[in-house]
Formats: sequence, C-alpha cells, structure tokens
Amino acid sequence: MTRASQRRRVHRYTADSDGTGRADTLAGEEPLEIRLNGSPFTVTMRTPGHDFDLVAGFLVSEGVVRAPSEIVQMDYRSGIGPDGQRTYNVVEVRLAAGVALPDTSMERHVYTSSSCGVCGTASIEAVTKVSSFDPAGDRTPLSVPALLALPDRLRTGQKLFSTTGGVHAAGLFRFPDGPAGGGAEGGAGAGEPELLCVREDVGRHNAVDKVVGWALREGLLPLSSTVLQVSGRASFELVQKAYMAGVPALAAVSAPSALAVDLAEQAGVTLLGFSRGTSFNAYAHRERLVR
Amino acid sequence: MTRASQRRRVHRYTADSDGTGRADTLAGEEPLEIRLNGSPFTVTMRTPGHDFDLVAGFLVSEGVVRAPSEIVQMDYRSGIGPDGQRTYNVVEVRLAAGVALPDTSMERHVYTSSSCGVCGTASIEAVTKVSSFDPAGDRTPLSVPALLALPDRLRTGQKLFSTTGGVHAAGLFRFPDGPAGGGAEGGAGAGEPELLCVREDVGRHNAVDKVVGWALREGLLPLSSTVLQVSGRASFELVQKAYMAGVPALAAVSAPSALAVDLAEQAGVTLLGFSRGTSFNAYAHRERLVR
Repeated sequence: MTRASQRRRVHRYTADSDGTGRADTLAGEEPLEIRLNGSPFTVTMRTPGHDFDLVAGFLVSEGVVRAPSEIVQMDYRSGIGPDGQRTYNVVEVRLAAGVALPDTSMERHVYTSSSCGVCGTASIEAVTKVSSFDPAGDRTPLSVPALLALPDRLRTGQKLFSTTGGVHAAGLFRFPDGPAGGGAEGGAGAGEPELLCVREDVGRHNAVDKVVGWALREGLLPLSSTVLQVSGRASFELVQKAYMAGVPALAAVSAPSALAVDLAEQAGVTLLGFSRGTSFNAYAHRERLVR
Repeated sequence: MTRASQRRRVHRYTADSDGTGRADTLAGEEPLEIRLNGSPFTVTMRTPGHDFDLVAGFLVSEGVVRAPSEIVQMDYRSGIGPDGQRTYNVVEVRLAAGVALPDTSMERHVYTSSSCGVCGTASIEAVTKVSSFDPAGDRTPLSVPALLALPDRLRTGQKLFSTTGGVHAAGLFRFPDGPAGGGAEGGAGAGEPELLCVREDVGRHNAVDKVVGWALREGLLPLSSTVLQVSGRASFELVQKAYMAGVPALAAVSAPSALAVDLAEQAGVTLLGFSRGTSFNAYAHRERLVR
C-alpha cells in the first residue's frame, strides 16, 4: 500500500483493566529496493514517503554522488501487493555517464563500506568514507540560544510523530553566516536560523538520508552554515552522513557514542548531544558556539 | 581498544552558561566483522562486549544456524589499532559440516535477505525469513501484572545505560508455563517471571542478537515461554528476530510499526508496545494475556 501511516486495532492494558479495542495510527514500514543502472544495490526498511529524497541522500551518504546532475533519472517500478493494491517499493536510478557504480560484490562491499579490515584495526580511517566536501572549513558562528531552540522547532515539524509516536525525525536549519545575533540588541529576529527541511522515518538513518537527499535535489550541497538536528542518538553513521553532505554541525536529542565523537573531532563537525531545549552538551568543535 | 564505554571531554551549555569541561562516559561503538569459514560475511557497528553472543544471535536471526552444535568454533582475530592498543573487532566462525553458508553475492544477498523482489511486492512473505521454530504454538499464559513490571526490571539490569544514557537494551524473561498466578491468592511469588539475560548495545538489533545468541549458546532455543522486553521501538526486524528464535512475545517501550504488527500477527508472536510500567498496548495475539 506504501503509506506513511496505517491503522491497526489496539487494546490498552493497565493494572486494573483490559481496556477496549480501538483503532490506532502506526508508522508505516515497508522495504524499499534501490536499483542502480538496472542492477540491485540495496534494500532498506523505511517509512514510505519522500522516497526519491531517501534514495538521493543514501547515494550521497555512500559517496556515490555529490551533485544533482549525477542522477539522471529516478523512477518507481510499481507492483501489485498481496492485497491487490499497487505498491511503490522499488526505485530505479540512472546515474550520469562517468559516475562510478559502487562495487557491490560482497567481499568488496564488506571491505570498502564499513569494515575494520582483515587485521582487525579499529581505526576510524578504515570505516570512514572520504567526503567531497570540507565542513571543517565552515566558519559560520552558531548561536547557543538558537541551538537550544532547535529541538522544539523540530518537534513542531514532526507531523507523523504527533499521530504515531513511533518515528524519528531530522531537521535541517540554516544559520545566518554573519556575526551571531545580527543587529544591535540581538533578539530572535533577523538572526534566527531558517528551518529548511524536516523528514521523518522509522529509521533514524533514513530520516537523515531524506533530508540530505532533499538538499542534493535542491542543489544545496555542500550544506554550509547548517545544523542538522536529529531526534535520537548520535551514532558514528549519523556523523558520517553529516560529514558526507558537508554539514558543519550535528545536534542529537540523546547521547553520542565515543566513536561518533572521535569522527566529529576528526571531520571538523560540531557535535552536540542531550540537546533538550534548556541545555545541551558539546562534544566536538565547540569553537563555533557563540552567544 | 574494544571497550563497552569510554571517557570523553564534554561541556554543558544552558541559556546562561557555557559550563566547564568535565569527563563524560560514552557508549563504545566499534565495527565488528564477522567471518564465516574464512570468508567475510558482514560488518556491524556495535558496542564491544558479548561479541560471541552477538555473532551467534546474528546467525540465528539470519537463519544460518538453529542449534549450538552448528557453530564449531568462534575466535577473535586480533589486531593493533592506531593507538597501539590491541583490538578485538574480527570474529572468525567455523560452522559445522553440512551447515549451508549464506549466499553472499550481492544480487542474492539483496533478494534473499530483505528484498521485496523485482516486482515491487510489499508482501511480508517476501521479506520474512522462515523460522525453524513455531512460536505460534506456545500456550504459556502471560500475566498482565507481570508484563507491566518488565520495563522496570529491564531498567535495573541496564548497567551501561545508567552510566552513558546512550544504549538500548533487551531482556529475556521466562514466564511460568502453568496457569498464571500459581497459588491461590496469586501474589508476585512463585508466578513471577525469571530474568534470564540482559544485553545492551548502541544498536537495538544488536542488543536483541546478543540475547538470542546467549540463548543459543546455552542450548535454550527455541525460546518457549519467554517474553523479550526491549527498550526502544518494535520494528519489523525485531519481530523477525523474536520469531526466528521461537520467542512467543515481544514487548517494546515505544511504538511498533504497522509491518511489525502484521508480521507478529502472522508469525504467532504476541506484540506489546508503549510498555511503560503502568500500562501497555497489545497489538497482536493478546489471547495469551491473563490476569
């Protein structure tokens, strides 16, 4: 059916009651197969919606593309589900001539995409892709009060979360690149960051890929002067996705992992965690933070 | 370094202060490469610790093994990290003769492990593996008060969460298979479920694989009469992992996806969501629930 949310029957139980049945709205989750130039590339479980953004962002994250012109065409290959409804769970991508296809043989896949290598080295270098962009050089000042406001601003854009409670979100904010605060007495006027895009998905990584893919298709890469606010934890892979898109700062509502901190430090990405409205923790590159 | 947690420097910011630096404990996250009979199989980002459980559980979830005898040997291949410390991020597995190696060519990988197939069918059948076990036949009654207590009981076992706040957990509980409550006036005595195993990881899926792998190695599969309580959402893949291990009930602290509900319904797995101590929602196979 390919829907962002679906209705299912639910019964609520407490210490005293078994409740009665009612209809509940749940996040949709369906497989999406990505095909590159006619060959299968990968399958991800995702919440249907903004699929072309997801595919484009995934290709940026994997280092396959870096400019919108490198994707010539994206189309659904539709099918019929067991319920007789049309499905939209395969996206065919045609890459521009000269764009190298990723090597998808398993051996290469393991070693090039995420492996620590046969020697067991735990080096970040071995698992990190090399970005076409350089967020380390981004000098945009990030206002602490504006950063504190991001989780609430993200929440207001989470339409699917408000009905299902079961999806992650990623929001992209552009910060003014002049001196923070702009005018004299500052205030939340001209200096306030602009919300560019919010995307939701049952998968944290997919929500980020959808935002990055939207930006690629809008011709906005590299994402200079932006902050990516995410609803969950900051894993190594989320920092990597920010880095691949040239995002200079990632803020997460929950904790980062140690490796996420190390990669952020190395890649020049400002990393904030436990970003909860009234406070946040800065783990890497806090030199961008200003009052 | 291969450690479950690591120390990093952090600065806390509020509306009024930039705080001072302090040391913070973060969850470890490192790549683990799994090799089968000498060939690379997969790489996962995981929190170091209980790695053999993780590998064994992953093999159960992928349908490669179903009995402890099918794994002849597991060994670390150690290496030296960039910091000169020894790493333990490769596990070599030798499978018993006759255990079929999964086909890891990319084309097959896509189609056999998680694809919806070339026609774009969104059918559950196409993405679901077939379990060796049948949780649908499990008749163990599940006491509602005992189920309500599981999130708190899981929380007390989350040692890493209490120091880092950044990891997921999965806990396996065995319910008494007699009539619920046991004796006359019931009470939380003899009838209380036994906590068998708690595992933590930055990845929700890894935490579940670690529990399942522990159970495989203890000779406890199929996991009849058990409830798997997890800290996050109930995705399709978590229901699938429960099903592959023969677990008759999965309870999640957050929401399930629509596809998770559909698979649970079909696989005979009781599915609870928003399990928060004072209430939970039942989404599938609530016929096991008793007072």
